Amino acid sequence: MPAKDIYHNTAKNALIKDGWQITNDPLILEYGGKDLFVDLGAEKLISAEKDSEKIAVEIKSFIGTSQVNDLEKAVGQYIVYRNILEEVEKERILYLAITKKSFKDIFSEAFGNLILTKNKILLIVIDPQKQEILQWIP
Amino acid sequence: MPAKDIYHNTAKNALIKDGWQITNDPLILEYGGKDLFVDLGAEKLISAEKDSEKIAVEIKSFIGTSQVNDLEKAVGQYIVYRNILEEVEKERILYLAITKKSFKDIFSEAFGNLILTKNKILLIVIDPQKQEILQWIP
Repeated sequence: MPAKDIYHNTAKNALIKDGWQITNDPLILEYGGKDLFVDLGAEKLISAEKDSEKIAVEIKSFIGTSQVNDLEKAVGQYIVYRNILEEVEKERILYLAITKKSFKDIFSEAFGNLILTKNKILLIVIDPQKQEILQWIP
Repeated sequence: MPAKDIYHNTAKNALIKDGWQITNDPLILEYGGKDLFVDLGAEKLISAEKDSEKIAVEIKSFIGTSQVNDLEKAVGQYIVYRNILEEVEKERILYLAITKKSFKDIFSEAFGNLILTKNKILLIVIDPQKQEILQWIP
């Protein structure tokens, strides 16, 4: 199992505070004899009558020496996880959880914003001090 | 500049043998103040009357300890490079160059094949011993 991101518990606490129930830590996806370990699986009841909403969350701190390299790795994981989720659990929506600093430094800049938009990557922006979700994008 | 893949010269020689002129080693793409280093840029004259065909080639040996991890990294780089090429040099087509062993072990299996197909990744399959191109896919 891969090492946990330094913001693993921060993101987990922020989701719980937002009313999500953590159902998988990690969420294991299996396809064609390969296992994938997405950081978290979570559920939220939409209403007593309806089904619950299900998400998968990959947490990324972007603390490597190269921002471009970190972004390439995050995009690769996100795309591969989304590809597999489409096959094995279509109703579960994949999010990339990042800090507000990463959002400002990487995804608000031209390069990161282009990559985000072109690949329709969904973000959860977290305040790591308050351990709270600031924004779901889009 | 990132370290060269162990098959860098092998892939380069295979392209030259196939009639390509290596124009960039590496091919540097710039967008929003960030530089990307794609392994090779190459050109081939289609006919004396016409423009030349232009490609960008990222070479991947897939020799890491985790096949899934290697694949995620390769997909991330490929997608980001393709995103940027669409903006800065739309006519240049991006290929991922791999050995016939990687093609058999990774991309012919269910998992790798799904990722390949879903993301429309174009491959050049190389015989590293003969330093020759075996196949362009598709």
